[in-house]
Amino acid sequence: MRKQSIGIGLMGLGVIGGQVARVLTDRAEVLAEQVGCPLVLKKVKVLSRGLTRPQAVEMGLQLFTTDADEFFAEPGIDIVVEVIGGENPALQYLKRALSGGKHVVTANKEVIAKHGAELLALAQQHKVGLRYEASVGGGIPLIAPFQYELVANKINGIYAIINGTTNYILTKMAKEGVEFSSALSRAQELGYAEANPENDVEGIDAAYKLAILASLAFQTQVRPEDIHCEGISRLSSRDFKYARELGFAIKLLAIAKRSNHLIEVRVHPAFIPEDSLLAKVDGVNNAILVEGDLVGQVLFYGRGAGPLPTSSAVISDIASQARDIVLNVGNRFQVKLDSGALIKPMSEIETRYYLRMSVADRSGVLAQITKVLGDHRISIASVIQEEADSAAQTAEAVLMTHPAQEKAMQPALEELAHLAVVKEIGNFVRVEA
Amino acid sequence: MRKQSIGIGLMGLGVIGGQVARVLTDRAEVLAEQVGCPLVLKKVKVLSRGLTRPQAVEMGLQLFTTDADEFFAEPGIDIVVEVIGGENPALQYLKRALSGGKHVVTANKEVIAKHGAELLALAQQHKVGLRYEASVGGGIPLIAPFQYELVANKINGIYAIINGTTNYILTKMAKEGVEFSSALSRAQELGYAEANPENDVEGIDAAYKLAILASLAFQTQVRPEDIHCEGISRLSSRDFKYARELGFAIKLLAIAKRSNHLIEVRVHPAFIPEDSLLAKVDGVNNAILVEGDLVGQVLFYGRGAGPLPTSSAVISDIASQARDIVLNVGNRFQVKLDSGALIKPMSEIETRYYLRMSVADRSGVLAQITKVLGDHRISIASVIQEEADSAAQTAEAVLMTHPAQEKAMQPALEELAHLAVVKEIGNFVRVEA
Repeated sequence: MRKQSIGIGLMGLGVIGGQVARVLTDRAEVLAEQVGCPLVLKKVKVLSRGLTRPQAVEMGLQLFTTDADEFFAEPGIDIVVEVIGGENPALQYLKRALSGGKHVVTANKEVIAKHGAELLALAQQHKVGLRYEASVGGGIPLIAPFQYELVANKINGIYAIINGTTNYILTKMAKEGVEFSSALSRAQELGYAEANPENDVEGIDAAYKLAILASLAFQTQVRPEDIHCEGISRLSSRDFKYARELGFAIKLLAIAKRSNHLIEVRVHPAFIPEDSLLAKVDGVNNAILVEGDLVGQVLFYGRGAGPLPTSSAVISDIASQARDIVLNVGNRFQVKLDSGALIKPMSEIETRYYLRMSVADRSGVLAQITKVLGDHRISIASVIQEEADSAAQTAEAVLMTHPAQEKAMQPALEELAHLAVVKEIGNFVRVEA
Repeated sequence: MRKQSIGIGLMGLGVIGGQVARVLTDRAEVLAEQVGCPLVLKKVKVLSRGLTRPQAVEMGLQLFTTDADEFFAEPGIDIVVEVIGGENPALQYLKRALSGGKHVVTANKEVIAKHGAELLALAQQHKVGLRYEASVGGGIPLIAPFQYELVANKINGIYAIINGTTNYILTKMAKEGVEFSSALSRAQELGYAEANPENDVEGIDAAYKLAILASLAFQTQVRPEDIHCEGISRLSSRDFKYARELGFAIKLLAIAKRSNHLIEVRVHPAFIPEDSLLAKVDGVNNAILVEGDLVGQVLFYGRGAGPLPTSSAVISDIASQARDIVLNVGNRFQVKLDSGALIKPMSEIETRYYLRMSVADRSGVLAQITKVLGDHRISIASVIQEEADSAAQTAEAVLMTHPAQEKAMQPALEELAHLAVVKEIGNFVRVEA
């Protein structure tokens, strides 16, 4: 029987939820045409009844409830749209929706990153759809390409800038020569960083998103805890100065790649060639470079967050899901997330390294450093040595190594730190060519 | 009833068709899992029976036919895959397939650009799918985003580098300072340009692709003949030199944008800011920048042609179509291509202009030029004047104008060409900021 309308239940009416409700209303006619029947908002689950927002009043107060039971008791809901965010209670709501035979659209990266495999299995079991395009990269199409448009490919790697906050901070440090703390303050003033910025600056947010992308790309379950994760707070303006001299930009990269039969997944600051496209991705923008065996390198770029881009993805997911309901399709995407991906231990990964040290300003220092690295079979590609502080008789030594394994580099760094001639290891950053 | 297998009929076994057949065979198991049942090649329509290719022999000679009637008589074909290219006989084959209730996957930009609306209507009428992701941008997902992932947006503009041949030539001219003819020869040697390069260098290929993208983006029928089209053969190495001095790159841009209630569609060389992402798109690569009202600017980048990237799109389309067959979905995409888009006349478009002229090397020349432009209400933003040839007493004058309408600029150029002090209009190029 042909559906007369598709009922939407909206969970969350923050900035994202408010924008989603606005588009559903403002673009009702166009959406109805695309889908084949109208989309009707049936219920909105909010945190409190303090509904002072003019929008809520305009939408009709009878739509609103603070009670999850009342929300799920509404019989007219076909699609549950979750834009609450955070792990709980969102996870419980999503399970309840799927188990109850409701299709789900969510923007929740944390829940999908941590529980995506379980939720996809639940969706398949109950023959309903689970869509989460908005969970990564705002409105940039990133989930669907892995499910549909690149499906012919064996995906070999993903190299992504997927956290706008840190990219804003790194761009500011690179362009204005300021230190991390001052760039962070500016990001907070502009609303790009939260008061507690840990999730962003420590790479946790990027790791959630990488877990989602890598799981799809490799059709296996990559969990956030599988991902080696380092943030950007160690970076100093001097690192940007040397990076520029050496022909590199510094970005917080989320990397997932096949490496023999293992999967390498990591989030950390990286030197990347300054003439690469990813190096040109500035400010709060995101970009994801995907390497497929047929398609070669494709790159997707755009704003990675914000109510408007996120609503673009949420509404498009709703429209596609609604169209599937009209077409009587239950679960379109064939999920095959093997459990237990074989993750390459971080100690086994191999990259080049940038190394900045404060050293004694006298002859023979480099020989000692070279010897330590050589003992660990790490060879040096180039050296910059600068006189930094003639009073303290220290200089700054900057090395670029040839490719070396992490398990060689880490003990070498330990040893270097204990050399009498090394005052301090300023920083080390991996290099991705 | 659940399908036991999906039958594929392949029309064309050139480099693309050969690659498609290879992937269907090599990746049969993975594809069967994604789709839910095996994909089986039932028939291959070739031009001649001179089947010396080892692949054809390996595939089984009984699969092959040179006879279209025999091909269409094969009852087991569910999806017709057309990779012949060109307008005829491909158009007749596609109509015959759709009218016969076969789903269609095609890589044919010319047929879709010229007859897309008619073919989509035919597909809808016969409740079958028509997919053409491979017709634009090789394996870069470009068609699906407009149909699905960006569907919530009102698309305001498309700015695209969608012809790899010309982008290779322009990159070579920019980086090596060579002239057009020598860059073209090199492109021909490398197989990036055909012996008769007109379709590429005159912008015709780009116009086909733009017609396809603009039709989808604006949900109206934009025909190739609606598109103002200029090629790159007028450009000289001096234009690249001045572009660089002024902070610009030169690209063959395909532009489609809303302009009040009209649609502006044009393909021509353009100055674009050298720090823009599109300016960084080098060699045979393609990139498409899309502006949506919700999503903001998103960019898609990758290889725009070649058997491997094209097969990525063709096979992914086959898999999606096959999955829809398994799910018993006829025509998924709701087509709404209004006929008769209101196209803005070229005379009404407004841009800034770069203008290079060979002029008499004496005082008062610029005053005369400025007066002509001023008479047409065109004002000058900046001027470079260089002594070019002291023997001939000519200099080169390079102007950047403020925004002006084409209908002012064209007569102004005429008039300038007739000034005694102007020896030659070297070139003029539109500027897109």
